[in-house]
Amino acid sequence: MVYQIGEEKYMQMALELAREAYDAGEVPVGCVVVHDGQVVGRGRNRREEDQNALLHAECIAIQEACKTLNSWRLSDCDLYVTLEPCPMCAGAILNARVGRVFYGAGDVNMGACGGVINLFEEAFGYKPKMYKGMLAEPCSAILSEFFKALR
Amino acid sequence: MVYQIGEEKYMQMALELAREAYDAGEVPVGCVVVHDGQVVGRGRNRREEDQNALLHAECIAIQEACKTLNSWRLSDCDLYVTLEPCPMCAGAILNARVGRVFYGAGDVNMGACGGVINLFEEAFGYKPKMYKGMLAEPCSAILSEFFKALR
Repeated sequence: MVYQIGEEKYMQMALELAREAYDAGEVPVGCVVVHDGQVVGRGRNRREEDQNALLHAECIAIQEACKTLNSWRLSDCDLYVTLEPCPMCAGAILNARVGRVFYGAGDVNMGACGGVINLFEEAFGYKPKMYKGMLAEPCSAILSEFFKALR
Repeated sequence: MVYQIGEEKYMQMALELAREAYDAGEVPVGCVVVHDGQVVGRGRNRREEDQNALLHAECIAIQEACKTLNSWRLSDCDLYVTLEPCPMCAGAILNARVGRVFYGAGDVNMGACGGVINLFEEAFGYKPKMYKGMLAEPCSAILSEFFKALR
């Protein structure tokens, strides 16, 4: 089996979703879930608009992927997200048994994949493959731009 | 201000929701969110029925509470859950800034409030008050009964 590293085009799609969040006044984070080369779930942060603490990009994308595939198990899926997942989203990735996780920018405040803690190295019986830093620069730049405009 | 400890009647309601999950063939976990003495969110595990990895009792109850109160911040709320929250649900509790968390049975496999790790003691900038072991015996018994019947 040829080992295939993740594809940047999917992170570009996640970035487009982050831009959509930006335009809606939300912290700009986007996420796509890919299965067999097909995007089966998409999400972008909607916390403020919906006043819902759970509506991070990853949770929305994972739920959509479960619906598309009619399965809570996403073992054969790759997840691309522009920002390092928080504990809730990293926990959702564990619960859905997502196969591989690619993230762009790191998060030293809320990151649960190495930034603050690493949930994927704890004894939860499942450890997804994780790749950090894909398109880190634009993923980080859109966040800086957002917080700069906010101040 | 008189310090008020949580009330067992709310854990009893969570137990009734766990029983509902049991009857539906789901791992029996139930949760209620309480604000000013009113139940503003309810949830029970629905993972298998809905084939959705995110539909744990706590996530459903938190989302309902956000909707009821039209706010992603649940600082003035108490959450009662029959089983120790997993990383995803403990992360959701952090993200929603839930004020106080009461849980019944501990979980040495997936517990993120002391069972395996304790997310509420990490540097995420927010630490809810946590109380464990309320009605631990019936909360644990319904789980044992479920897994025994499964085998």
